[in-house]
Amino acid sequence: MSGEPLARQYQELKTVAKRDLKSTEVSAKLSEITRDAFTFVTSKCRKKELVSMVPDKAYFSFNRGTKLSRPINDALFIVDQRLLERYLVTFQSGQLATFSSDEITRLIYTMAMAFCAATDAQKIGDKKTPGTYFEYLIGHLFARELGVNPQKEIEVLRLDTPASLPTDFVFDLGPDRTKLHLPVKTSTRERVIQVWAHQRIIDGVYGAGRFKGILVVLTETKLDLKSRQVVEICLPEQWRAYQMFVAQLERVYYLDVPRRYAVLAGVYPNIQVKILGEFYIEKNRLIA
Amino acid sequence: MSGEPLARQYQELKTVAKRDLKSTEVSAKLSEITRDAFTFVTSKCRKKELVSMVPDKAYFSFNRGTKLSRPINDALFIVDQRLLERYLVTFQSGQLATFSSDEITRLIYTMAMAFCAATDAQKIGDKKTPGTYFEYLIGHLFARELGVNPQKEIEVLRLDTPASLPTDFVFDLGPDRTKLHLPVKTSTRERVIQVWAHQRIIDGVYGAGRFKGILVVLTETKLDLKSRQVVEICLPEQWRAYQMFVAQLERVYYLDVPRRYAVLAGVYPNIQVKILGEFYIEKNRLIA
Repeated sequence: MSGEPLARQYQELKTVAKRDLKSTEVSAKLSEITRDAFTFVTSKCRKKELVSMVPDKAYFSFNRGTKLSRPINDALFIVDQRLLERYLVTFQSGQLATFSSDEITRLIYTMAMAFCAATDAQKIGDKKTPGTYFEYLIGHLFARELGVNPQKEIEVLRLDTPASLPTDFVFDLGPDRTKLHLPVKTSTRERVIQVWAHQRIIDGVYGAGRFKGILVVLTETKLDLKSRQVVEICLPEQWRAYQMFVAQLERVYYLDVPRRYAVLAGVYPNIQVKILGEFYIEKNRLIA
Repeated sequence: MSGEPLARQYQELKTVAKRDLKSTEVSAKLSEITRDAFTFVTSKCRKKELVSMVPDKAYFSFNRGTKLSRPINDALFIVDQRLLERYLVTFQSGQLATFSSDEITRLIYTMAMAFCAATDAQKIGDKKTPGTYFEYLIGHLFARELGVNPQKEIEVLRLDTPASLPTDFVFDLGPDRTKLHLPVKTSTRERVIQVWAHQRIIDGVYGAGRFKGILVVLTETKLDLKSRQVVEICLPEQWRAYQMFVAQLERVYYLDVPRRYAVLAGVYPNIQVKILGEFYIEKNRLIA
């Protein structure tokens, strides 16, 4: 398969996602893209082991010609095509919650990484394509689970001329119910302070706690192309300062959780960092 | 002149700046770099008019081979070498305050843009070099004027293990006196929310108003290489939301002020956007 069918699929995803992000058409299109991307990386690319500098994690990369994909976590990427197909059928039928949180996390990780790796290994779209795809994927999961589509801006200046601020996804579950602010990033690095700052603005406009902030991140790995070493870029002390002084996020869900962030749940100010699959377990408590 | 002497001068600037940013050695080195960069762009490059889409502003670019420098404001860049030399002598002697705010702004704009254009038109250092040079230039101006060198981090977690947060420049003028938080950017775009968020953290740690936030920006122009059109990227409604809900900046100084930001001083929440030269006029009031 050349890159073209995948690029076309991606365009079709954008079309159906803009029409109705929570729809089963989007589930179907995401599954189709996953199958195509998976077939591409497993049949047209070579698997290259990387030098993991991250304790207790092994990473590999899909390689094609001179191109090397971003690092892929060995323990999270599903390589068994039949297992993947079985998971995808459950995903399409909207029954993800019947899986364990680990299984859900592995499936979503594989859906995200198959497409990212396929775009890394060929030239599909622009630099933003993997990030936008990941936004559609996560936005769809939450929209389908919550039964409501998100907005991508909020009103801010209420007394004078109305103005709106572009944000990541915000979900309004209806009058008197919890609302969600859902930033989605393939990785955070030094740009993450924007997430807390947007939460601060939303708290200021709508009242503290009105919107629960839930950050969803794919991974924090960084690959050195020369040495093929994989490291995780984490800034836990800065996160603690943001959570103390800028705003409070309710959850940070990762597909590939960095250990240095996972431990933040146990120290003040107790940032709850978990695997994404946990959302399906604690959803009802979160949106109660 | 090839790029090498300028690259060497830049390395020497880093050395003297790290030793003592407020020193006359740094003034001398910045003047020397300005002279060399000015000679390079005016003798080895061709001046190309650009298509300005910004009302009442004309822009040109220095061109060498296939390289085109960033847009330069016609009305701000000093092209008269003798005038520039006279200004530089005054700058080196530490007597900038004898000039008008317009004259100061034009000199600093020329010092910044000569180096940026020279690095754009050749390959000097990495992508960050112009930004780092601009930080040294502005950091030096404030340090020399205030008589104190800045820090580049602040302590944040005071009860448990101490930790520090990397920031832009912070100036401590001594016990019971105003302190300054001075972020410096060649342009801001969507990353500017970091500035307000850092101010928020500093307010939270040290008390609201303890540090006055002063943002210094070179320009907001963007050049389309194909059409040679210059536009200004401004997000005034977002700035108003940041100033209302994240933190309050005391001043935003520009070398090339966008009109759409200058008018923010007249509407709630009244962000004071001015030309950099004004700092020399109102300095005593600001640090009182």
